[in-house]
Amino acid sequence: MARYELYYWPSVQGRGEFIRLAFEDAGVPYVDVARLAPPRGGVPALLRLLRGPPGTRAPFAPPFLKVGPLVIAQTANILQYLAPRLGLIGRGEPERLFAHQLQLTIADVVQEVHCTHHPISGTLYYEDQRAEARRCAQHFTSERLPKFLGYFEKVLGPEGKRRGLVGRAFSYVDLSMFQLLVGLEYAFPRAFARRTRTIPRLLDLRNAVARRPRVAAYLASPRRLPFSEEGIFRHYPELDEAS
Amino acid sequence: MARYELYYWPSVQGRGEFIRLAFEDAGVPYVDVARLAPPRGGVPALLRLLRGPPGTRAPFAPPFLKVGPLVIAQTANILQYLAPRLGLIGRGEPERLFAHQLQLTIADVVQEVHCTHHPISGTLYYEDQRAEARRCAQHFTSERLPKFLGYFEKVLGPEGKRRGLVGRAFSYVDLSMFQLLVGLEYAFPRAFARRTRTIPRLLDLRNAVARRPRVAAYLASPRRLPFSEEGIFRHYPELDEAS
Repeated sequence: MARYELYYWPSVQGRGEFIRLAFEDAGVPYVDVARLAPPRGGVPALLRLLRGPPGTRAPFAPPFLKVGPLVIAQTANILQYLAPRLGLIGRGEPERLFAHQLQLTIADVVQEVHCTHHPISGTLYYEDQRAEARRCAQHFTSERLPKFLGYFEKVLGPEGKRRGLVGRAFSYVDLSMFQLLVGLEYAFPRAFARRTRTIPRLLDLRNAVARRPRVAAYLASPRRLPFSEEGIFRHYPELDEAS
Repeated sequence: MARYELYYWPSVQGRGEFIRLAFEDAGVPYVDVARLAPPRGGVPALLRLLRGPPGTRAPFAPPFLKVGPLVIAQTANILQYLAPRLGLIGRGEPERLFAHQLQLTIADVVQEVHCTHHPISGTLYYEDQRAEARRCAQHFTSERLPKFLGYFEKVLGPEGKRRGLVGRAFSYVDLSMFQLLVGLEYAFPRAFARRTRTIPRLLDLRNAVARRPRVAAYLASPRRLPFSEEGIFRHYPELDEAS
């Protein structure tokens, strides 16, 4: 079996969590390299690959996955590569295209969530862009959040028709949707609570994912890092919708 | 041959332009549906597909491509689907994975460019977020622009080794890089001019793409919409780096 090495920042869920969840649900072993002790692991091991020589296929940013000589970056690209190998997507091309499309739409939401606390620059502290963040988050929670959630709820369609977002079968996109929903609820508990009655099927999906035995075991393990204000989903009460 | 229908806003280059360029360079016919007259085309035709019924595979946003019954959304997903069919990518899996990874990194730059003029919300006018835009653009032009350009220049590697970003052969990613570079130069002429001496290989690539016969013919045709302050790459002098 292939040896899968995941490279991602060791102290946050971040974008790497979408990939961790796929491995964990599939029960396929992986090495979370930057969480190992140096010299075998740690952030230096991550930076070594990131700073590959010119003319090589070095990634721009973590997460990236190493499988033998192959280094694959961009979260949705990694998941698209892994999903058939982990049994997390069916064989049909229309199904795979739609799964990837949904995953890229989830990535768009994640990017917008990041912008709510870093609207000016990712290199400035949150504290240096608080006023802008507040304005940005107001728009996100009142306009974008309902729009995205409404879209995904609509994708699920009428009850009984689909088990997951992509179709009858469970897929990696359902795992990513779980992560998105719990992340949104962590970051914006009030805004999220206001929308819950409009997304019954998404909440069913979230709960079903959380009950999957290997997901449940993972969430209860020390491998699951907690949400924090260092990650993408950050809870700053002043950015949540007024109650 | 498949009938390709592209759905995108009819008055701007925007994200749809990355797909138009692939069809144009390949010399493969496509219908730019929203640019046709109603009822056959126009924005209403685009909205009809966008507002598909629940439980169907409707997209979240344009651009999307219709090929028979298949509707594919997300720019990078569409290009990944089209590239082998248009002869714009080789057969190897490592090559295709890296091409898609680069395309998603280009999409990240495009998203950050959009944020320079809309840091607070895409639904507000630029004029209602000018102060924030100015601050955001300062960080983009001084930190992110050099970082992204430096990365792509490094991917090209030493002269003579590669013809394109993905490898020896030309690919759709080179077309997208052309669009990114001319877009950045349009939006931020001063900031871009300051970086040109650090990106000789990217500029060679841009010039080589512009000289490709079908690209040159397209750029000179009325099918190529002009850059404008309605698109993603917008030239607001106050957002460009101080000269």
